[in-house]
Amino acid sequence: MTHRSGRHFLQIPGPTNTPERVLRAIAAPTIDHRGPGFAEFTLDLLAALKPVFKTSGPVIVYPSSGTGAWEGALVNTLSPGDRVLAFETGHFATLWRAMAERIGLDVDWVAGDWRHGVDPEVVAERLANDSGHAIKAVTVVHNETSTGVASRVAEVRQAIDAASHPALLLVDTISSLASIDFRHDEWGVDVTVGCSQKGLMLPPGIGFNAVSDKALEASHSARLGRSYWEWAPILEANARGFFPHTPPTNLLYGLREALRMLEEEGLDAVFARHDRHAEATRRAVRAWGLEILCEDEREYSSVLTAVLLPEGHDEAELRRLILERFDMSLGAGLGKVAGRVFRIGHLGDFNDLSLAGTLSGVEMGLSLAGVPFERGGVDAALEYLQASDGAPDDPVPGRLDATEGAERALA
Amino acid sequence: MTHRSGRHFLQIPGPTNTPERVLRAIAAPTIDHRGPGFAEFTLDLLAALKPVFKTSGPVIVYPSSGTGAWEGALVNTLSPGDRVLAFETGHFATLWRAMAERIGLDVDWVAGDWRHGVDPEVVAERLANDSGHAIKAVTVVHNETSTGVASRVAEVRQAIDAASHPALLLVDTISSLASIDFRHDEWGVDVTVGCSQKGLMLPPGIGFNAVSDKALEASHSARLGRSYWEWAPILEANARGFFPHTPPTNLLYGLREALRMLEEEGLDAVFARHDRHAEATRRAVRAWGLEILCEDEREYSSVLTAVLLPEGHDEAELRRLILERFDMSLGAGLGKVAGRVFRIGHLGDFNDLSLAGTLSGVEMGLSLAGVPFERGGVDAALEYLQASDGAPDDPVPGRLDATEGAERALA
Amino acid sequence: MTHRSGRHFLQIPGPTNTPERVLRAIAAPTIDHRGPGFAEFTLDLLAALKPVFKTSGPVIVYPSSGTGAWEGALVNTLSPGDRVLAFETGHFATLWRAMAERIGLDVDWVAGDWRHGVDPEVVAERLANDSGHAIKAVTVVHNETSTGVASRVAEVRQAIDAASHPALLLVDTISSLASIDFRHDEWGVDVTVGCSQKGLMLPPGIGFNAVSDKALEASHSARLGRSYWEWAPILEANARGFFPHTPPTNLLYGLREALRMLEEEGLDAVFARHDRHAEATRRAVRAWGLEILCEDEREYSSVLTAVLLPEGHDEAELRRLILERFDMSLGAGLGKVAGRVFRIGHLGDFNDLSLAGTLSGVEMGLSLAGVPFERGGVDAALEYLQASDGAPDDPVPGRLDATEGAERALA
Amino acid sequence: MTHRSGRHFLQIPGPTNTPERVLRAIAAPTIDHRGPGFAEFTLDLLAALKPVFKTSGPVIVYPSSGTGAWEGALVNTLSPGDRVLAFETGHFATLWRAMAERIGLDVDWVAGDWRHGVDPEVVAERLANDSGHAIKAVTVVHNETSTGVASRVAEVRQAIDAASHPALLLVDTISSLASIDFRHDEWGVDVTVGCSQKGLMLPPGIGFNAVSDKALEASHSARLGRSYWEWAPILEANARGFFPHTPPTNLLYGLREALRMLEEEGLDAVFARHDRHAEATRRAVRAWGLEILCEDEREYSSVLTAVLLPEGHDEAELRRLILERFDMSLGAGLGKVAGRVFRIGHLGDFNDLSLAGTLSGVEMGLSLAGVPFERGGVDAALEYLQASDGAPDDPVPGRLDATEGAERALA
Repeated sequence: MTHRSGRHFLQIPGPTNTPERVLRAIAAPTIDHRGPGFAEFTLDLLAALKPVFKTSGPVIVYPSSGTGAWEGALVNTLSPGDRVLAFETGHFATLWRAMAERIGLDVDWVAGDWRHGVDPEVVAERLANDSGHAIKAVTVVHNETSTGVASRVAEVRQAIDAASHPALLLVDTISSLASIDFRHDEWGVDVTVGCSQKGLMLPPGIGFNAVSDKALEASHSARLGRSYWEWAPILEANARGFFPHTPPTNLLYGLREALRMLEEEGLDAVFARHDRHAEATRRAVRAWGLEILCEDEREYSSVLTAVLLPEGHDEAELRRLILERFDMSLGAGLGKVAGRVFRIGHLGDFNDLSLAGTLSGVEMGLSLAGVPFERGGVDAALEYLQASDGAPDDPVPGRLDATEGAERALA
Repeated sequence: MTHRSGRHFLQIPGPTNTPERVLRAIAAPTIDHRGPGFAEFTLDLLAALKPVFKTSGPVIVYPSSGTGAWEGALVNTLSPGDRVLAFETGHFATLWRAMAERIGLDVDWVAGDWRHGVDPEVVAERLANDSGHAIKAVTVVHNETSTGVASRVAEVRQAIDAASHPALLLVDTISSLASIDFRHDEWGVDVTVGCSQKGLMLPPGIGFNAVSDKALEASHSARLGRSYWEWAPILEANARGFFPHTPPTNLLYGLREALRMLEEEGLDAVFARHDRHAEATRRAVRAWGLEILCEDEREYSSVLTAVLLPEGHDEAELRRLILERFDMSLGAGLGKVAGRVFRIGHLGDFNDLSLAGTLSGVEMGLSLAGVPFERGGVDAALEYLQASDGAPDDPVPGRLDATEGAERALA
Repeated sequence: MTHRSGRHFLQIPGPTNTPERVLRAIAAPTIDHRGPGFAEFTLDLLAALKPVFKTSGPVIVYPSSGTGAWEGALVNTLSPGDRVLAFETGHFATLWRAMAERIGLDVDWVAGDWRHGVDPEVVAERLANDSGHAIKAVTVVHNETSTGVASRVAEVRQAIDAASHPALLLVDTISSLASIDFRHDEWGVDVTVGCSQKGLMLPPGIGFNAVSDKALEASHSARLGRSYWEWAPILEANARGFFPHTPPTNLLYGLREALRMLEEEGLDAVFARHDRHAEATRRAVRAWGLEILCEDEREYSSVLTAVLLPEGHDEAELRRLILERFDMSLGAGLGKVAGRVFRIGHLGDFNDLSLAGTLSGVEMGLSLAGVPFERGGVDAALEYLQASDGAPDDPVPGRLDATEGAERALA
Repeated sequence: MTHRSGRHFLQIPGPTNTPERVLRAIAAPTIDHRGPGFAEFTLDLLAALKPVFKTSGPVIVYPSSGTGAWEGALVNTLSPGDRVLAFETGHFATLWRAMAERIGLDVDWVAGDWRHGVDPEVVAERLANDSGHAIKAVTVVHNETSTGVASRVAEVRQAIDAASHPALLLVDTISSLASIDFRHDEWGVDVTVGCSQKGLMLPPGIGFNAVSDKALEASHSARLGRSYWEWAPILEANARGFFPHTPPTNLLYGLREALRMLEEEGLDAVFARHDRHAEATRRAVRAWGLEILCEDEREYSSVLTAVLLPEGHDEAELRRLILERFDMSLGAGLGKVAGRVFRIGHLGDFNDLSLAGTLSGVEMGLSLAGVPFERGGVDAALEYLQASDGAPDDPVPGRLDATEGAERALA
């Protein structure tokens, strides 16, 4: 490997910059996953995971990517031919839909423009029209990693409740978990899908399913084929501190350490930090005269910002140039927005000066790539960062508290 | 965590003692799995994996436990209701059968006594009787981790060929891969199932499927439900150095390093080392006057030795005592042999003096637990280790070359 | 330890940000320093060290701080009461002088204003006046870490030669080594003093003495008391790959890795990178309307920039605020300039975006601290970084090639 | 580097097998040694060091090898021409004497046979004869690393007291510290010399001086030349949590972790463990029919055992063979006993099974090298290890409590 001086800026919206503290934890020797020490470790770990999902129920830990956890959510709760209400919020919602269809579900697909989240009113309307309760589940991607749009899950919940509809609520928090406020229990989510390599600051290799009582109940009658993903044997073994398969021991060490770091900083402080960095980034984008993909300020993502390039300018070329010249990785335009959109990740183990470096790299890159833009983005971000001190009680414009927003929208 | 002086002896038959070189590799910073550097890394890694399986075909890498790779082998090649010929060689064969049934296969189960491997003659007989080719696959666990019995895969292949039967041959090499000679191509294996945490010396978290052309062909018509495990999108992305899911980056770093270590030592030397340590262990067991679970010396496992305790003595109590007193983890008796059998792992990153320490711990433990036995096991092992110098050309009694054995058995 | 999100910016002029590659190397198991493997390692390491000093002679490796290497240079070459010509270029020159006096040398001290390097003309003059050759050594701090002023060593050499004076030339390259061009052999340096924690990117714990034939000759008659620092037994043991003391094994692993990184990047590229980052920093400082401590552009340091605060503003308070708010460590004002000067380190394992983050932190800090300044420093730096591509052949204004400058000055 | 399977057995009497927990601590990022976080860390570290020396006074931490700490002890307390009473207990005592002479001290050298420690009666006699108090210091190597003989320091103290002699007592605990009971305050030691790479389980790179009030008082008038080693500026800076030089930050991280490990195990348990492993080793040696170098059982070392080979057998050849064949490093014969004696280290991070592996390697090596010996050493050791459970209150034959022994000897 050829040395490149300095630290790589990994500013894709996940995997994120893994803190060295987590990397060192992962490098501890593998132990016997059937021994008494491991059982103690596991029980502690599973308990420590719950607050991150804001749940008092079980969290399933899969040795898998996030994709696997998507599959776990579907196959444990649904049966062949079941109808699922899903929304085209972006690339990952589209992939999840494709998976659902591949495994035999019937997806009721609400088209979207990739610039908005799930519309709670559409949820309300569709469910109201489903008097026969053919719809068995509503799937929502909390934070669309491809677009930087965060759906208002609490409002979706309220829409379901308003329709008195029994559909399960399945939520993908792959890129929001431990970065944007999410409340599994309070919002009545039935299965929350998560993974390790975003806000949890770990390398990839772990998928999660947080499971409600209702979802657990559903799993008893669900008939989609499953073995690896089946919750029951995992829950049974977990109760004693074990797993029915060989768990990814070393990644679990890292997970324990990452949870400690989140506890030390405090989840509210973590969310406020992400909100603040997102606002600083948006101010930079606006100062550059570029367009933010997300059109509704209630849906701004605090973990990444997707930026539209003017017609005739290729995001792949911009990212290639920035990687080569400034050793920074940015997120590609995916699916429908490939070529037009690049994504700035500002999540995970991150701070003000790293954000300043990130935005500096984008600003210089835009200039070198010949994209028409205004200078001043970095300045605008610095001005904001300087003025807001990052304490949790600091109001961040353009980002409402998720629950508050829900209440107002449905008032 | 309370400090316990000295290094833990992890002598279960996997996960194995992860070498520090691999642990340090795993601790490198996570990078962008969609970037050009990662593609280059992946292409090199996938090429370096092939020799371990002795295949020129593709090897699928799953972020999963070995259990997941079992599922991958089945769902990619078979359809609901397909008949599979399987053998009760031990606990893991039994679990694989249960998985097959759970996902809708019809298992033709050949009962066994957990002290022998797959009988090639029974394979020949069953297939000869299946003139209608109802049997779509034969599944074999190469090395039964629960019993220390290694099935003669080459002879199974010859039995299938002798019957001119088109059944696929699916082999679990979870605990044999990179420790006992295995030849995917030469032995006509269709899917080889492997994982990271045994002979490959990694922490758990990666599963493998090595795939023959015939298996690939079968995957086009196989109708078992699958999404995460589906080979096609993985092979397509792999061709360009990528994955359709987020790969377990840091474990892959460790895998690359482990493959380098195997290359440096040389696979033949690795196999000879395992053979030699297994023979030394068996000599110790015989000197103690205890019984080796494996009854056929052609089927001795080179990665672990399962030992029967005399009636009235509990292996769990023995292992508990050894763990507490000597900080060594041994393998439990599983399934049918729980309580009666303990297992000594002598695989992975291991050497003569660590084996001497391991056998010393067992010898002292037997004495402290009040198990009736003869002293002298360690001495017998040392005598053998001293006399044999560990070079690959060193003849190890009681362990035939796998292919040679096959030729003789079917001559 | 309480978690603080993101990576600390360690922008003091050393210790520098140790690259993870070096940290992982340091974490390898300690081995027998008297074994054959270690001898091979040492011989390779000592050979790999020479190019960094641009010498073909021996380099002594001490388990010590840089201070120890200062002592090594003096006690091996001089005798009680010997006269040494030294220059008040800043805090570290002053400390070295104090050490010289403490161990019994007679220092001819040329006062200075801490804003200039060693004046070659004064060297020439002093030596010309010393017709009796009472001066036994001239000591020069190549890069004054306290002031950001780099003395022109090649010109000092020429001054000594012009006077046909036999004095030894002892040079401290503690903060310049592997960052600013330095040529032990070509510039006729007799002892070069270095350490591990600056341009070599290691943690502290190793000191160096590169030694000329003339210095070695001097060591045979030098009478200052010494034992630990004595070159002779070290050189004798080094010839066989060993050390007379127990060497700092793990730091040496890191040193080997750091040398590989420097080889991969190329020393000329390393120097050009430091020059470029220094120029960008100076442009930022000028845009802020602040004063650079170094007054002669021929003496600009490429490893750090010392900045004068306006009267009435306390650098300690500024640094405290920046540390608390932005998690960045800057260098304190030392000695005479304490309270007035803060120092920005831009050396070691560093890159454009980290520099952008660093300067952003300073700019926001200046504002928050109420220091009167102009915005625009970061912009000025970005403009320069963007325009210059960092290739070694890139001309950097205000920084002459050391040798070229020497030729011109003495023409 | 070529891979050798399994973990190297580093059974020299230091550096010892560094635990992975310490190695990971060392791999944490270097921080600003002048920042507030570092001061807090240092104050805690310096406090945590005291119990290891059993002192309430200051402990000086040098970035150096143990040799440097030897020099520190002498130059801070003595003046040119001062007389020192020293004992030829082995190689290291001889080297310390040579250092003392090189820096200008007058050594009163008591010849020895390298099989005994310092004779307290000789101390008493010599001091009684020194009515003019010409002897300024008595130097003792607590544990002679070259011979495996531990001198009875408490009795030496009593001898000095009995003579009412004002000489300082300087003790080298380089290979005993944190392995064999040592009591700086209780035994009235004036300077205790230690280092990092033995019982403290760290890589080399740190030297220590624990300092009594009397030594501190002596340092005010001592006139040996010193700068780097001078206590005064270190103590002054330490009081605020800093160092006058750049401290070896990353090794200090490892030191903090090692101290935690010692606290967790408990110092008494640590000493008992070393005693027990030493006794097991001696039983093996006796069973082999070989001779232990140490002739007085009151002076048996608990950290290493030096073994005499029969005439005509070369220890270097034996060690070479064991290293090549079993990947174990043993200690060489040093100085007078080179060629005749090999040394087995059983100190630091160590446990029963690692000792069993170690002794197995020696037993096989003796056989392969053709050394005349009896089998059964490993068996004898195992029998002892099995019978004694390693709890601190376990009586270990042949090893008296140091103070108790002192009382009895001088009763």
